Amino acid sequence: MNLKDFKSTKERRKYIEKSRKIKLDNTARILIEDEKDINCENLIGASAFPLGVAGPISVKSEKLRVKNYFIPLATTEGALVASVSRGCKAINLSGGVTAFVENVGVTRGPVFETSGLEESMKLKKWLKDNFNLLKTEAEKTSSHLKLKKLGARIAGTYVYVRFYFDTQEAMGMNMITIATEKISQFIQKNTNVRCLAVSGNFCIDKKPAWLNFISGRGKRAWAEVVLKREVVKDVLKTTPEEFFEVWLSKCMIGSAMSGSLGFNAHFANVVAAFFAATGQDMAHTVEGSMGVTTSKVLENGNLYISIYMPSVMIGTVGGGTKLKTKQEALSIIGAENSIKLAKVLSGAVLAGEISLLASLAEGTLAKTHEKLGR
Amino acid sequence: MNLKDFKSTKERRKYIEKSRKIKLDNTARILIEDEKDINCENLIGASAFPLGVAGPISVKSEKLRVKNYFIPLATTEGALVASVSRGCKAINLSGGVTAFVENVGVTRGPVFETSGLEESMKLKKWLKDNFNLLKTEAEKTSSHLKLKKLGARIAGTYVYVRFYFDTQEAMGMNMITIATEKISQFIQKNTNVRCLAVSGNFCIDKKPAWLNFISGRGKRAWAEVVLKREVVKDVLKTTPEEFFEVWLSKCMIGSAMSGSLGFNAHFANVVAAFFAATGQDMAHTVEGSMGVTTSKVLENGNLYISIYMPSVMIGTVGGGTKLKTKQEALSIIGAENSIKLAKVLSGAVLAGEISLLASLAEGTLAKTHEKLGR
Amino acid sequence: MNLKDFKSTKERRKYIEKSRKIKLDNTARILIEDEKDINCENLIGASAFPLGVAGPISVKSEKLRVKNYFIPLATTEGALVASVSRGCKAINLSGGVTAFVENVGVTRGPVFETSGLEESMKLKKWLKDNFNLLKTEAEKTSSHLKLKKLGARIAGTYVYVRFYFDTQEAMGMNMITIATEKISQFIQKNTNVRCLAVSGNFCIDKKPAWLNFISGRGKRAWAEVVLKREVVKDVLKTTPEEFFEVWLSKCMIGSAMSGSLGFNAHFANVVAAFFAATGQDMAHTVEGSMGVTTSKVLENGNLYISIYMPSVMIGTVGGGTKLKTKQEALSIIGAENSIKLAKVLSGAVLAGEISLLASLAEGTLAKTHEKLGR
Amino acid sequence: MNLKDFKSTKERRKYIEKSRKIKLDNTARILIEDEKDINCENLIGASAFPLGVAGPISVKSEKLRVKNYFIPLATTEGALVASVSRGCKAINLSGGVTAFVENVGVTRGPVFETSGLEESMKLKKWLKDNFNLLKTEAEKTSSHLKLKKLGARIAGTYVYVRFYFDTQEAMGMNMITIATEKISQFIQKNTNVRCLAVSGNFCIDKKPAWLNFISGRGKRAWAEVVLKREVVKDVLKTTPEEFFEVWLSKCMIGSAMSGSLGFNAHFANVVAAFFAATGQDMAHTVEGSMGVTTSKVLENGNLYISIYMPSVMIGTVGGGTKLKTKQEALSIIGAENSIKLAKVLSGAVLAGEISLLASLAEGTLAKTHEKLGR
Repeated sequence: MNLKDFKSTKERRKYIEKSRKIKLDNTARILIEDEKDINCENLIGASAFPLGVAGPISVKSEKLRVKNYFIPLATTEGALVASVSRGCKAINLSGGVTAFVENVGVTRGPVFETSGLEESMKLKKWLKDNFNLLKTEAEKTSSHLKLKKLGARIAGTYVYVRFYFDTQEAMGMNMITIATEKISQFIQKNTNVRCLAVSGNFCIDKKPAWLNFISGRGKRAWAEVVLKREVVKDVLKTTPEEFFEVWLSKCMIGSAMSGSLGFNAHFANVVAAFFAATGQDMAHTVEGSMGVTTSKVLENGNLYISIYMPSVMIGTVGGGTKLKTKQEALSIIGAENSIKLAKVLSGAVLAGEISLLASLAEGTLAKTHEKLGR
Repeated sequence: MNLKDFKSTKERRKYIEKSRKIKLDNTARILIEDEKDINCENLIGASAFPLGVAGPISVKSEKLRVKNYFIPLATTEGALVASVSRGCKAINLSGGVTAFVENVGVTRGPVFETSGLEESMKLKKWLKDNFNLLKTEAEKTSSHLKLKKLGARIAGTYVYVRFYFDTQEAMGMNMITIATEKISQFIQKNTNVRCLAVSGNFCIDKKPAWLNFISGRGKRAWAEVVLKREVVKDVLKTTPEEFFEVWLSKCMIGSAMSGSLGFNAHFANVVAAFFAATGQDMAHTVEGSMGVTTSKVLENGNLYISIYMPSVMIGTVGGGTKLKTKQEALSIIGAENSIKLAKVLSGAVLAGEISLLASLAEGTLAKTHEKLGR
Repeated sequence: MNLKDFKSTKERRKYIEKSRKIKLDNTARILIEDEKDINCENLIGASAFPLGVAGPISVKSEKLRVKNYFIPLATTEGALVASVSRGCKAINLSGGVTAFVENVGVTRGPVFETSGLEESMKLKKWLKDNFNLLKTEAEKTSSHLKLKKLGARIAGTYVYVRFYFDTQEAMGMNMITIATEKISQFIQKNTNVRCLAVSGNFCIDKKPAWLNFISGRGKRAWAEVVLKREVVKDVLKTTPEEFFEVWLSKCMIGSAMSGSLGFNAHFANVVAAFFAATGQDMAHTVEGSMGVTTSKVLENGNLYISIYMPSVMIGTVGGGTKLKTKQEALSIIGAENSIKLAKVLSGAVLAGEISLLASLAEGTLAKTHEKLGR
Repeated sequence: MNLKDFKSTKERRKYIEKSRKIKLDNTARILIEDEKDINCENLIGASAFPLGVAGPISVKSEKLRVKNYFIPLATTEGALVASVSRGCKAINLSGGVTAFVENVGVTRGPVFETSGLEESMKLKKWLKDNFNLLKTEAEKTSSHLKLKKLGARIAGTYVYVRFYFDTQEAMGMNMITIATEKISQFIQKNTNVRCLAVSGNFCIDKKPAWLNFISGRGKRAWAEVVLKREVVKDVLKTTPEEFFEVWLSKCMIGSAMSGSLGFNAHFANVVAAFFAATGQDMAHTVEGSMGVTTSKVLENGNLYISIYMPSVMIGTVGGGTKLKTKQEALSIIGAENSIKLAKVLSGAVLAGEISLLASLAEGTLAKTHEKLGR
């Protein structure tokens, strides 16, 4: 019996309960009856993620006003919500987070195969010369996307093209894949060069890659705060100097010694929990784990901290965001658009970095003093 | 009012509904009332992931017997479950998947600070000479872990130590962090060298890093299958030659051109959905996205495909696995232990690679023929 | 006595001979007496590199004409010249090499420090808005350079700027460093943002780095050839199929397993010997070691091979090229300009790849047959 | 006429002079007539590298005695010798450099092809179980090498093995290649598994690669010094604080933003010039460019600096070291063995880092003050 042939979710679930001699009552009961937008085949029910709320976090807006946002986090990792909340407290007591988000564009990277370098070079030139035609083709497939730019790289008979799309409020992978297929067919038709694959890992999607770190993918996000010295002491139980020392040895030299693309403490924890709550594609946690945390002790003794995320794949519409519990989580945040949502995420990530680095500094140094009697 | 000060989940949720003027009915109703093991602070309810089931997949056991496993996948990405199922069909028609899993050990990597190279070298030697003492200290903290080995790297005054632990059926990050704190205190006490941070990013946890790719972390997993030529044609709508061509240009050359640690098609998609269903730490999707897919057209015209995952962070007990819906997902699989669970995951990942690479080959080549009139 | 205080090379050498009780007769005698352009302090003489000549190699020009170039290689590694010559023979018998070179531009990457993200964003915008002013400033420093473009990346208070220069026939690092200092002073003066270092490793000079691989540095070079099946057999003692097999397992999967930026057999060997002969900066062998070799067995049974070098730092004037023996080596090649010189290098690198991969295929497979009696 | 068919170097050179209508007088006259050990085919003469001498540098020995070494550098890059000399001066005024060298072992990494995972796993186990037999086979090929250890990684049908050899005073690539061929034949004979290539890029030789950074190759070297505050001021014209600031923004954050394996200022410059002078394989400059420089302002205001080189491929015998001018350069140093030679190199590299980072700090900051009137 084939799982996709069952008429209903219930029957399918019953079949599995029977064949495995198990009960799936909870999986059954938490599926929201009138859920309309479930993109999941062979459905048998739903899986629950505990939802906690961190913050609120104060985010500075352009005109120096501050707005507070709650941060819903769906996670099974103890201490994560508490840790982000502690970071928010320190941030808020210091005037709030400054965040910037740049819409680089979502990317698809097909690979074409030519007869050799001469045709490869010709194709690269043709792509540049005919950008507007490609743009027109792409934008026929949806009113929600714009082709922003393209880049191409050649290795012998292989031409890798990276298309950057503006997908408005959606993360947009599905729509740009359709658009890229359309473009690829147009290229094939007009150049007689074959498209080997609509994704040639030059996108590069859901894999750690320097191309995304260096060129950006989706949105680039930055966040910073200057923590008052007394806040570091009272809220974070450490000093700017100890914090800096841990940051330098861990996020910089430690990451260098490990050959990492993540020069940070734990971006991925906050990204994964934020993505799970708000209906993002969980596999994009990979891109979200890359990036750099910086820190510095200022002359006045305060602590400067910033985070840089080169590739944030996030949206407020489409995909998982349509599910009821995800909609509710988005309403908890109340971000006006996907740019604002990315700003709140970057603030949450900054809060997570602050809290973890501080506890590492405090925890271990405290023990040091105690043990070494210093 | 501080979110952590509410007496109940309900009151906290009500407060957020009121302050944000929203309704959180679904978030409220899917929280499983008698759920005991929720590790999530500031709880307001739960977030639902649609749960689909792929497979079953036939996994060859040591003694050439074959056992079938259903594959629960919690995802919001359309086509993923169907795609893995299609891969399973092709695998099963070819006799099932061969999988191997090696328990490398979960790692923690503290950083110590010395007065200079001489003391750094001394500490490295001391760690080697006193391994058994460190092992004893570590194993005092839990009967569920064993210290397997350690490695150390020196950069000036910084000594990075990587401890490998066997954590039985648990993924084990929490228990090994406690054990590593204990070890670090012991080292400080006996060498007077200060531990700067119990995690110096030499673990390296939840960040893409070559250290984990090369040395392994958690479990190493491999899976392979030889697909019969007719199965490739009938089930996957392509040929071994076209499949190979797409694999080479995408997973090898494309990933090289992108500076990636993922020489695969989409490990992360399957890992994320499998982790979400079975209660793993979602941030470990990062480690799971690394690895290599290989493929080859055999002399008899059949298609060989394999996957290698250098760092699978997975367990059958502890953390999120205790939640009811996760328990039910684990019961759907019915894996005897975490090694077997990793084998099923590796089979699912292989199925995902087969299906996506085939559809890329078929999709685009079909269009090619149509458009170019070949 | 300070080495730089000696009046003559001879006196300095005598002093070292005396203090070390050694003889430096050969070091003395090979220094070319009337050498004028020696950029080396504390000179005591010269060191000799054996100079061999490989080739000639047939390089196809635009209009399908073919021109032959000798390849001078200064090396102490046995078999290298012979190996490149063997590759040239195979190439020439197959009609010659097709080469393309793109002048990406030599780069310098200073780092600026701002008061925070807002000023960092402002500076990035200012740089874009004032590109023409920066160009004018830069080009005041030399009539031999043009500022082509710039790119900027922000991490908190740090702004990394990458300036791309056209330096005509020179490799040009010295002149662009002067130009970049001039630009940096102009930026400081007009924005009050401090330049921390004229090189912030965003150049990135003489270090393996994905930025150079992905964005290119100096010149990008490609070369390819289709080797006739019988040539592979007669000259290279192997078959296209065995060659491909070795290429795939070594340059692709092997390099992936090693976390390499070099998906090739031994670019660095040929680059180092060619650079030593022609007076290039030997430390730029690092950039030259990066890149991708591709190979494919064509339907007619012939063997396609290509190489891609993303960062070739090379020139025909300036620096070491002024030395007499380097001038003579350049005259052996007789390249019309630095683009042509890079084409000859790319052909030599291709020849080196062909010969080494073939001998690996032949050598080991021959032994296999013998040993395994196949 | 084939270049290798000429009876003498002179005739070959004459032929090239005639066919290219050029004169090669200098190339001719600097070839040392009675040079016996020239490993260079198609010889036509020699190419000259200006040889300068930096230092001497004071190197602390185990028993706190200090020994001074001159540093011969063959280079065409102006300021390099002067810069290293300046670094040496600062080091010597601060008591000399502390250096450590570990002999990791030179590596060769063949690739074997099996029928699938089961045979791959069997081979890996067989290699481990039969290490002593492999060791015996390897050591039959030369009395100068010892097989130290091996490591193996599996990707489907491919088994990559990394053999580590102690090659005494030689860099040793040639002898270990012969030994590895011997081992590979033995493995093939006893396991019937085919060796695809004696080098499968798991060595990984002359390519930037994280495997060499993380596991080490050849020798690991470290050097450090504490520069007195007044020395930093008087000799280096900067302050420990400014030096640290430049180091952090350039070698740490800048290298992170560039995706580099070189977290240093310019290891490659010193390595290339030292290798050219002492007859090392110039292509190993690639491995020498990797590594980490650390720096720290001590509580007493002094400046701590260290360098870490994970892969130094160096020897005092064999290969290019046999040439007369290289022998003379080695006699200038007078290192007792290859470990000592690596220590002197590491000291020179440290000196180079100190001088360049200081001039970046001084140069640009000075200009800042002048321009910004601070």
